[in-house]
Amino acid sequence: MNICIVGLGLLGGSFALGLKQLPYHYHFIGVDNNPEHAAKALELGLVDEISDLEAGVKKADLTVLAVPVNALIAMLNPVLDMLPEKATLIDFGSTKELICGVVQNNPKRAQFVAVHPIAGTENSGPEAAFAGLLPRKIMIICDKEKSRPESVKLVEDIFRQLDMRLSYMPADSHDLHLAYVSHLSHISSFALGATVLEKEKDEENIFNMAGSGFSSTVRLAKSSPEMWAPIFTQNSRNISAALDSYIRKLQEFKNMIDNQDEAASFELMKKTNDIRRILSGIDQ
Amino acid sequence: MNICIVGLGLLGGSFALGLKQLPYHYHFIGVDNNPEHAAKALELGLVDEISDLEAGVKKADLTVLAVPVNALIAMLNPVLDMLPEKATLIDFGSTKELICGVVQNNPKRAQFVAVHPIAGTENSGPEAAFAGLLPRKIMIICDKEKSRPESVKLVEDIFRQLDMRLSYMPADSHDLHLAYVSHLSHISSFALGATVLEKEKDEENIFNMAGSGFSSTVRLAKSSPEMWAPIFTQNSRNISAALDSYIRKLQEFKNMIDNQDEAASFELMKKTNDIRRILSGIDQ
Repeated sequence: MNICIVGLGLLGGSFALGLKQLPYHYHFIGVDNNPEHAAKALELGLVDEISDLEAGVKKADLTVLAVPVNALIAMLNPVLDMLPEKATLIDFGSTKELICGVVQNNPKRAQFVAVHPIAGTENSGPEAAFAGLLPRKIMIICDKEKSRPESVKLVEDIFRQLDMRLSYMPADSHDLHLAYVSHLSHISSFALGATVLEKEKDEENIFNMAGSGFSSTVRLAKSSPEMWAPIFTQNSRNISAALDSYIRKLQEFKNMIDNQDEAASFELMKKTNDIRRILSGIDQ
Repeated sequence: MNICIVGLGLLGGSFALGLKQLPYHYHFIGVDNNPEHAAKALELGLVDEISDLEAGVKKADLTVLAVPVNALIAMLNPVLDMLPEKATLIDFGSTKELICGVVQNNPKRAQFVAVHPIAGTENSGPEAAFAGLLPRKIMIICDKEKSRPESVKLVEDIFRQLDMRLSYMPADSHDLHLAYVSHLSHISSFALGATVLEKEKDEENIFNMAGSGFSSTVRLAKSSPEMWAPIFTQNSRNISAALDSYIRKLQEFKNMIDNQDEAASFELMKKTNDIRRILSGIDQ
């Protein structure tokens, strides 16, 4: 079976590497508009050959679009149009509502399955890919009923081979949940990094004091702006509401601190400690 | 040499464990107002004996106060008053201005050295202690000129035995820097956790989606309210200013997202990516 991976970065590369460790015979065709990334991906063994987009898609049983969400919007219909009749198309985008929207009237819509692996790191590019990224993580499949059963089954089988846990939800629910649990985390981290960089002109101070929790809280501020700026645009309505809630919560917390209301801030933190129980079992 | 550790939690316990791995002969006397913590600390080998406060301090060449900062404020003068003439007192508090303020007129002020190890985890209690917490981390020594040279030398020698890196600053600068790099991180993380817990009533959703960055950004929201509520009170002026800057930055970011101004949000994130270079060499 031929799998064409468009976008040879962290997610696309890790998907291929994860499958290559298993006893199945997939042939990976890589497509990347950055020739250095393509060459690197071949050198690192993420894919077995490099191709241009159309030739790759034409040869593949499964095409995976693992590109930033703005590129996804531009590519989805053209790639669907060139997709062989028996083939299946998936995307790995972090937004789903707009993506499902742009293909809704495409005659080949049923050959497309909208998915999102809940996995990532702050690193990007082919060198960031590693076989262990996807196994045991959640794969969300959106609007499954709009995809033909054989395409859904194909991708479900592959995700299960990768030992991923499948979760199903409508595209709009996906975007709402992701706004809170993923997109807001990235914004809070970027804003924290930006605030500290502005105030602490002495880099040595930042480095020296980062031991006390800063480095983990700000980790996501190392993430790729190329990937994230379009996500924030595409999910702006949900993110805006999530940010409003977050800013209100910070303001509430600040009022407690300003008023030296230690009982109230204690209570807020004690309740929030419940996150330890909920996340128990997740590393880092 | 006898070292009395008051507060047998993460920091006090890790300080003792770190020193116990070295070829020096320290005898550790443990003091804790929680009898279970005291018994656990003895059982885990953090200390060699358990004592009440006064007997422990009287026997020690060095007393370490590793208790929450509200307890510190209450204990500092009484402990200084009972400190033997040749002995030295240090504290590990995350605030320094108020702490140095309350002892400023104590006749034994020069026997006190105000220090703060820039190290911690989200865990607390004697079981959370580990020998590797302090080595290679920063130890800040505040208002060194107010301590007698032999006391400063004693603690510098011990911190160097622990392979810590020493940094010197006035107590007010310490509190200003820590507000941005440590205290703000904790507040941003607690507020993020609180926001998500309020919005996502389905814990399964939080758990499932936490892979995408949430778990590291929210890690500090597992921290001890007993420790943090009094820190926020004692450093409220600096924290309030830091929170104002952070909320303004979030509002600025939100406006970019609301206006779909991708160029501006891209630019903000690109600049903030510099945090990767600054923090390179620090894990997580």
